[in-house]
Amino acid sequence: MADALRIGIAGLGTVGASVIRMLDAKAQELTRQCGREIVVTGVSARDRNRDRGVDVSNARWFDDSVELARSQDIEVFVELIGGEDGPARASVKAALEAGKHVVTANKALLSRHGVSLAAAAEKKGVLLNYEAAVAGGIPIIKTMREALAGNQVSRVFGIMNGTCNYILTRMEAEGISFEDCLKDAQRLGYAEADPTFDIEGHDTAHKLSILTSLAFGCRISADDIYMEGISNITQADIRAASDLGFRIKLLGVAVKTDSGIEQRVHPTMVPTSSVIAQVHGVTNAVAVETDYLGELLLTGPGAGGDATASAVTGDIADIAKSRPGFQHGPVFGWPARELTPYKRARMRSHAGGYFIRLTVHDRTGVFAAIAKRMADSEISLESIVQHGDATADQHKTVILVTHETTEAAVRKAVDGITRDGHLVDKAQVIRIERAA
Amino acid sequence: MADALRIGIAGLGTVGASVIRMLDAKAQELTRQCGREIVVTGVSARDRNRDRGVDVSNARWFDDSVELARSQDIEVFVELIGGEDGPARASVKAALEAGKHVVTANKALLSRHGVSLAAAAEKKGVLLNYEAAVAGGIPIIKTMREALAGNQVSRVFGIMNGTCNYILTRMEAEGISFEDCLKDAQRLGYAEADPTFDIEGHDTAHKLSILTSLAFGCRISADDIYMEGISNITQADIRAASDLGFRIKLLGVAVKTDSGIEQRVHPTMVPTSSVIAQVHGVTNAVAVETDYLGELLLTGPGAGGDATASAVTGDIADIAKSRPGFQHGPVFGWPARELTPYKRARMRSHAGGYFIRLTVHDRTGVFAAIAKRMADSEISLESIVQHGDATADQHKTVILVTHETTEAAVRKAVDGITRDGHLVDKAQVIRIERAA
Repeated sequence: MADALRIGIAGLGTVGASVIRMLDAKAQELTRQCGREIVVTGVSARDRNRDRGVDVSNARWFDDSVELARSQDIEVFVELIGGEDGPARASVKAALEAGKHVVTANKALLSRHGVSLAAAAEKKGVLLNYEAAVAGGIPIIKTMREALAGNQVSRVFGIMNGTCNYILTRMEAEGISFEDCLKDAQRLGYAEADPTFDIEGHDTAHKLSILTSLAFGCRISADDIYMEGISNITQADIRAASDLGFRIKLLGVAVKTDSGIEQRVHPTMVPTSSVIAQVHGVTNAVAVETDYLGELLLTGPGAGGDATASAVTGDIADIAKSRPGFQHGPVFGWPARELTPYKRARMRSHAGGYFIRLTVHDRTGVFAAIAKRMADSEISLESIVQHGDATADQHKTVILVTHETTEAAVRKAVDGITRDGHLVDKAQVIRIERAA
Repeated sequence: MADALRIGIAGLGTVGASVIRMLDAKAQELTRQCGREIVVTGVSARDRNRDRGVDVSNARWFDDSVELARSQDIEVFVELIGGEDGPARASVKAALEAGKHVVTANKALLSRHGVSLAAAAEKKGVLLNYEAAVAGGIPIIKTMREALAGNQVSRVFGIMNGTCNYILTRMEAEGISFEDCLKDAQRLGYAEADPTFDIEGHDTAHKLSILTSLAFGCRISADDIYMEGISNITQADIRAASDLGFRIKLLGVAVKTDSGIEQRVHPTMVPTSSVIAQVHGVTNAVAVETDYLGELLLTGPGAGGDATASAVTGDIADIAKSRPGFQHGPVFGWPARELTPYKRARMRSHAGGYFIRLTVHDRTGVFAAIAKRMADSEISLESIVQHGDATADQHKTVILVTHETTEAAVRKAVDGITRDGHLVDKAQVIRIERAA
């Protein structure tokens, strides 16, 4: 049998403790699968004395994660610290430069510095594995980086934030408001005390930016993502969606268009009959569409200590199975130095169907004015539903579903309707996404 | 750049032609991803003169696939001949013994001879990749073999036959009979002229036997699979299922029980609200449940030349990315010589809910007799629906849904009811499978 693989783990929070527990509990199976033992020889975390429920007494303790990253004691550095800069970045960089393989679950780090880290890894001929960084336990990185070799991706999209999906699922199932759902999610530990990062789409955007690079062989560009969160989704939207055969999900979508690559995160209407519409609660799902394979959808746990530990362990096992001289392909599918510059598509030219909900004054001619603005923008309508608002009989709700049109046309029409002075509230515009 | 990887392809049917087309069309991308060219240096098929729409004139032609398998011209042998014995087996064996990597899409071959072929591959330190053998383009082998390292699988199940799923989908959507659907499927090329292999579950069983080995580290045992096809599913079943919130799918299921491993292929009721219930038409889906990751579901095209070619190309690319001295873990997750003997669970002890449809004579006391038989077998019922049969008012239909019980108890109760002489037709018994 080959020599044991010596790894160092930096960051001993929920995921770090789960990884250590899993490596210990599954030592025999992993040895059999990898043909060698995996041994944790070094650990690093902020507080040496905290009880984490796992025994790390056999590993050497490092107060400084950078020191662990460079240590002669390890061949693989597992970064579970988090954060796009600080010790996470410094230690991953140090590990790669010292010729160590790296496994990380850090989406923020990769989203910001992924390309330069990939270049460092490829220069040294070491692996940089990051399955846990996107959609937790779902093997989407392995699928896109390895299984889809040679496929040209046209679109990748998914539900990549469990907090948002949990809130949307409960809003629909129980008819309660966004605010009440959020409070419950916070109470149950599904949402942070400051939920902005999840709720407004930043977390999904980080993950999407990584998938975009894998999908299209371009550099990561997390700042070029159009982002709308779910905080302005109301029961009126959810009920109207349901009446029309749709369900609202926060999707991250990256798609190749004639003008470049479009990256967007926003509440999206998907057909109730689609597979992705059945993905409920904290579960994640990622769909990839390619020329040869067709459409693939992966569904599973997007977060949680054990599910994330499973992905980290899979990454470590891949390294344990490798032998000196082996190379398993570039970090982002293509060599980092050959990744093309990201070319942002014009978002305003995004084509697709739209759901538009308008709360209007109940006056003669309003309907005609709306219809005229739509016609002026050359928007063809799939359906129009108008109903009185029970609580305020001076208002009416008008719901429009458009056929495929452009973002620019919709914006123009809605701006016109707004200027006409018929709206009581800001217009609600939700994109519709085709999904199998 | 490393030397080109020289491959030989045996079998130039639909899949073989798609693989050659894909390798040609995607040569540039593949070279970039793998760091070396992939070149088809040898081909073999039955008829040299047939026009396959692809150019193989640059490759050396072999009339004998075994000769190609042993040829000095190739490092990788791609077997797309099909069949569990004959030239497919002979040439794969020859290739492995000659120290060539093998890629195959042949489920029948692996289902029958997988363990001995794995042993041969591991002895020579070469790869035996077979992503296309199960669920076409869905990367379930890679996921189970690599991504789930260290996870203990408790259950693996899925829709693995497109023909059956196509028929069941149309039966439900259009209210037409099994026979009419089958004829249409044959006309459209979704079913073979002799459909037995698909319809009666043999194809699903082959695939399931491979997943069972990967899931539980046991030897493949395709003969130990309980098998029921879909040919006796009627509109009455489909409508009753729908009324009760279920959909009927042909599932292959492997699950670990106290008494061993249960492998079964049969029509199954899954909750309409589950993700797998939304998998329509020829699409496949495979779910895996593990201790650390939780439940993962992969959905995608299960057949077709291009989707299968995508999986074959992914397998070839994995080899192209490897370098001498590299080994990527055992063929079935664990070394072939360490796979445990398959221990068949007692099928009669299978626990779960059941749907039972009885067509009974409309006589006094029938209902009481049925209820007594259920009680005698200690079966507790979730629901009982009784309705008159519009076309024959001497008959009634009784539909029972049981809580979790055992196969043995259900068989005992149904045998009793049958002996009581109340049944007009054979009882229809369909297992219910929990699915997220």
